[in-house]
Amino acid sequence: MQPKFRWIPLGVKGGLDESNLSSHLIAPIDSNKFVCLDAGTVYTGLQAANQKGCFSKIELSTDSGLSTEGTILHHHIMAYLISHPYLDHIEGLTSVSPNDFPKPIMSLQGTIDDIKNLLFNWRLWPNFANSGTPPLLGQYRYIPLKTGESTKVEQTSMSVEAYPLAHGQFTDSTAFLVESDSAYILYMGDTGPDEVEKRSTTQDLWKRIAPLIKSNTLHGIFIETSYPDERPDDQLFSHLTPRWLMHSFHKLASIVDAGNHLEALQGLKVIITHIKPDLSADNTVTETIKRQLFSHNDLSLNLIIAEQGRYYEL
Amino acid sequence: MQPKFRWIPLGVKGGLDESNLSSHLIAPIDSNKFVCLDAGTVYTGLQAANQKGCFSKIELSTDSGLSTEGTILHHHIMAYLISHPYLDHIEGLTSVSPNDFPKPIMSLQGTIDDIKNLLFNWRLWPNFANSGTPPLLGQYRYIPLKTGESTKVEQTSMSVEAYPLAHGQFTDSTAFLVESDSAYILYMGDTGPDEVEKRSTTQDLWKRIAPLIKSNTLHGIFIETSYPDERPDDQLFSHLTPRWLMHSFHKLASIVDAGNHLEALQGLKVIITHIKPDLSADNTVTETIKRQLFSHNDLSLNLIIAEQGRYYEL
Repeated sequence: MQPKFRWIPLGVKGGLDESNLSSHLIAPIDSNKFVCLDAGTVYTGLQAANQKGCFSKIELSTDSGLSTEGTILHHHIMAYLISHPYLDHIEGLTSVSPNDFPKPIMSLQGTIDDIKNLLFNWRLWPNFANSGTPPLLGQYRYIPLKTGESTKVEQTSMSVEAYPLAHGQFTDSTAFLVESDSAYILYMGDTGPDEVEKRSTTQDLWKRIAPLIKSNTLHGIFIETSYPDERPDDQLFSHLTPRWLMHSFHKLASIVDAGNHLEALQGLKVIITHIKPDLSADNTVTETIKRQLFSHNDLSLNLIIAEQGRYYEL
Repeated sequence: MQPKFRWIPLGVKGGLDESNLSSHLIAPIDSNKFVCLDAGTVYTGLQAANQKGCFSKIELSTDSGLSTEGTILHHHIMAYLISHPYLDHIEGLTSVSPNDFPKPIMSLQGTIDDIKNLLFNWRLWPNFANSGTPPLLGQYRYIPLKTGESTKVEQTSMSVEAYPLAHGQFTDSTAFLVESDSAYILYMGDTGPDEVEKRSTTQDLWKRIAPLIKSNTLHGIFIETSYPDERPDDQLFSHLTPRWLMHSFHKLASIVDAGNHLEALQGLKVIITHIKPDLSADNTVTETIKRQLFSHNDLSLNLIIAEQGRYYEL
């Protein structure tokens, strides 16, 4: 499959490390206009990407007054797509907000409501948005997305569909299906297994994307794996383990090709995000999760462990 | 003056950079039991300090299962003192919360109320505290401080007095006067000039600490300088510039010794925190602020620009 997107992870971890929390830049392969999917760590992620030479691969606007990180923020990130308002997905947005360039925040209404009422409210942070508690600093414009409706991302050639994902009793997370030139990327925010969440949000999403896999137009699925298999179901806090992840992909495979499900997803790029580090002396848990993922992979998925600040093509 | 405290900055910047936001470890010089003053960046700050060899100077608990960062979190940070609930002072606390060891959060009631109602509420973050929206994960215990009342920090030889500081119309910030063995450190959270805030919170604080300066028992004042002198007063957002900082210290000097105010604060350690970086190509603003601070210093203050991850004695 010819690559159709460029992807730069600004942050990949599922907690603990403020310098490396969920955030991903995605653009069509021939474009320098990105969306930022979640915003856990933005500035430090831009620094990491710059130090690794990522931006030498992209034609940057010339703005002599700005650092490279500033140039990306002001000229190349056209919108934030926020999956849910948990801080490890949004604290980077607050950090850069006073120095950012005006742009939209695109999310399902529930996420926008929480950001508006709880975050950009002059109590946890000044109101950098265009509605809510006055005074309105107006840096960001809220664009509520309707489930399943395609919405164009302004000043880019991308459009996005949003789908709710179960993430506990208090809030929904979101999957963003990003399209450009009839090619697709699926970005899934945090979610637990349908069986534990007792909802069918992942299964419903699989039905939406199965035809894209059949038509060879889905260029990757971003999905979380927060905990190792040993984590008991009642301690998942609406997250996945390698075993649950593979269980879920088996269900997707059966939708794509019930007759030959073990080969249905062969080579599909599955990007693993949001591994939760711990405080162990040898960081065993992260290695355990990776090992379990690869050892369970009887569907021949093309598993990619996201690394902060690298440049990828999908 | 013989040093009486050890200080390790975990984060020093006033925004933008998620890997280096306000947070400072303070302990008595002969102790390995710290308080953490603000918690903008915690884990990444511990990593930076560890990489710089900071913790080789401290007798650490042996807990073979834990990394050095984990050992500090679990055995050597005994409490968080949060000056105000703005995210650049608290997002690190949320990041480490799932991996932290139980301990108190000590703040004025208004700050506790905002953390409880807006942050640890299962919408922006799970409730890791001991009151508020259920279920209560109970990692942290809120200890509300009363203005001017000395409160012991459990499991340390330190006590703390809290004083409100003006920080705009929506929230107050806090100054913490930390005492151990009759020696003091004053940590001031973000605040604007009394003249712009139209309140006397800094002046009131100066009256409290002037006797400590006279008796040579104040070992340092932590104070913010967010913007350069060129920032207009109506754009300060309740922050200080070098000019306003020095204006304020002149007022302190007059309280300490009205007859000889230019020598009243000679050698006083003034630790500059919360310089706001910008996106300029050559980071001119930070250098401008430092230059302005030193050039205005006609009181012979011992100005110290805080650096992340260094070990200091005060």
